[in-house]
Amino acid sequence: MFKLIIAIIRDSDANPVIDALIGSNFRATRIASTGAFFRQGNTTLIIGVDAEQVDNAISVIKSACGPALADSSHRATVFVLPVAKYEQI
Amino acid sequence: MFKLIIAIIRDSDANPVIDALIGSNFRATRIASTGAFFRQGNTTLIIGVDAEQVDNAISVIKSACGPALADSSHRATVFVLPVAKYEQI
Amino acid sequence: MFKLIIAIIRDSDANPVIDALIGSNFRATRIASTGAFFRQGNTTLIIGVDAEQVDNAISVIKSACGPALADSSHRATVFVLPVAKYEQI
Repeated sequence: MFKLIIAIIRDSDANPVIDALIGSNFRATRIASTGAFFRQGNTTLIIGVDAEQVDNAISVIKSACGPALADSSHRATVFVLPVAKYEQI
Repeated sequence: MFKLIIAIIRDSDANPVIDALIGSNFRATRIASTGAFFRQGNTTLIIGVDAEQVDNAISVIKSACGPALADSSHRATVFVLPVAKYEQI
Repeated sequence: MFKLIIAIIRDSDANPVIDALIGSNFRATRIASTGAFFRQGNTTLIIGVDAEQVDNAISVIKSACGPALADSSHRATVFVLPVAKYEQI
């Protein structure tokens, strides 16, 4: 089974997170996006992973994100979506 | 349970829709996109919501979109996706 | 039932693939993205389709993509996601 991870991270974390994902043999697609609050830029990553690798991928993302700027703020938001079909052409 | 809403809206509706979503305590991520027909710019929103708030979020989007330009045209396309896992880091 | 296809294709294939999708009455939303490896630009397409049209849509994408640059390389990555709700406003 395959899963699709959509991770919304801070721009400042984008390069370290992508490098860490590649270093762990994950493949990510990067999209420039904007947060609703304050319209600050952020980065949306699309990562296809085997179901049993989901926790590992999230752990890699977590380790590569810099510290939160405030106690109440989040560094990343992660959605894991079920995939009905996955195909490489 | 959590759901992920992907809403494709017109650029002209993006600011009113995002303001309305924030005003109703939804959080949206905004991505610049392009429609297939005529290659006109549009906006793709990613919105994570509790399952019981899906209809409310769609209602907020609907209310904030301007009128359709023609009887046969749509103002927005909304996909609600199941979420296997949701995590804030 | 409805499905959401997320297809990540090469920039050079974007126009032929979109034209082929439109020619087969599919509607696609185009997003500029970047691959993790070498940070080369690519294109992410979002395509909403009836479940019974998924294979047809993937076949259209496959036919419109140019040849792979190397035996080991892929031309496109396709994720088919289940959709809990689909609405045009």
